[in-house]
Amino acid sequence: MNEKTIRERSIFQGPFFTLREHRVRIPGGGEKRRYVLEHPGAVAAVALFPGDRVLLVRQFRKALERETLEIPAGKMERGESPAATMRRELMEETGFRAGSLKRLVSYYPTLGMSTEIIHVYLARGLRRAPETARDEAAIETILLPRRKVEGMIRAGKIRDSKTIIGLWALRLGL
Amino acid sequence: MNEKTIRERSIFQGPFFTLREHRVRIPGGGEKRRYVLEHPGAVAAVALFPGDRVLLVRQFRKALERETLEIPAGKMERGESPAATMRRELMEETGFRAGSLKRLVSYYPTLGMSTEIIHVYLARGLRRAPETARDEAAIETILLPRRKVEGMIRAGKIRDSKTIIGLWALRLGL
Repeated sequence: MNEKTIRERSIFQGPFFTLREHRVRIPGGGEKRRYVLEHPGAVAAVALFPGDRVLLVRQFRKALERETLEIPAGKMERGESPAATMRRELMEETGFRAGSLKRLVSYYPTLGMSTEIIHVYLARGLRRAPETARDEAAIETILLPRRKVEGMIRAGKIRDSKTIIGLWALRLGL
Repeated sequence: MNEKTIRERSIFQGPFFTLREHRVRIPGGGEKRRYVLEHPGAVAAVALFPGDRVLLVRQFRKALERETLEIPAGKMERGESPAATMRRELMEETGFRAGSLKRLVSYYPTLGMSTEIIHVYLARGLRRAPETARDEAAIETILLPRRKVEGMIRAGKIRDSKTIIGLWALRLGL
């Protein structure tokens, strides 16, 4: 079963994604419109520090009109591998360099409407890089005990998919 | 810290979401554009059957250009509560009525760009409703052992956020 595109058009081209409308033929006959967000994909890291502490970033998120605590993350750039993106984003967002990176899981946050895939890593052996490597001054970082972050997820205080999936993947021994 | 909207406009109004552009004032001065997908929210259910089996739906997903296996889910309609949406969607998509519904977790799949929240339930005591209550003939359902679904997640064969978060929430005893 599939839905073959008969024609398509770009509705909006933004800095981080493109919105396209597909006119498709559905099985059994007939046509429907499907809207697809084309996204380059992203990475995120559970950055684990001595004492079983996890690095979170505090950011204002316009969609929610409030600040959130999330694991560090960022979008992939054209031609960039997930691991290279991860190292770049960790550095830019938090000022840390990872000694080792291990992929825990890759997932589609909203496959009903977007091509976005998020690759979640476990980062260890973190060392602070020279201050000049950071470029996102607006991002504040915080180190919290892993159990504390898990408790915040259970209490509904952290509801971000990559943070939940990253922490739970680690807890389940992936 | 926040990013106050100076002006905004609707870029696209689709059947399931609205895309809006905000011109915001950023802390420390200056202006930036922020794009926000306004979404009504959604529900999903880990529907647990005797023998520790889980109900999945097989669907063609245009964004991925392939079929996926996911837990049953659907979008909320205006004025509809999450639990009412859940009962309606379970019935429409799978033909089952839940004896009990318990909320496991609510999460934001992509809070960097969308207001969408997904409420994930555990549905038990499932009984088949009269065939006439189903209206989505294109959706095929399948019952699989819970351990099998968890194995498919670990193997990267299921990469859908709500399915991963639902199964893991249950495994972690939420």
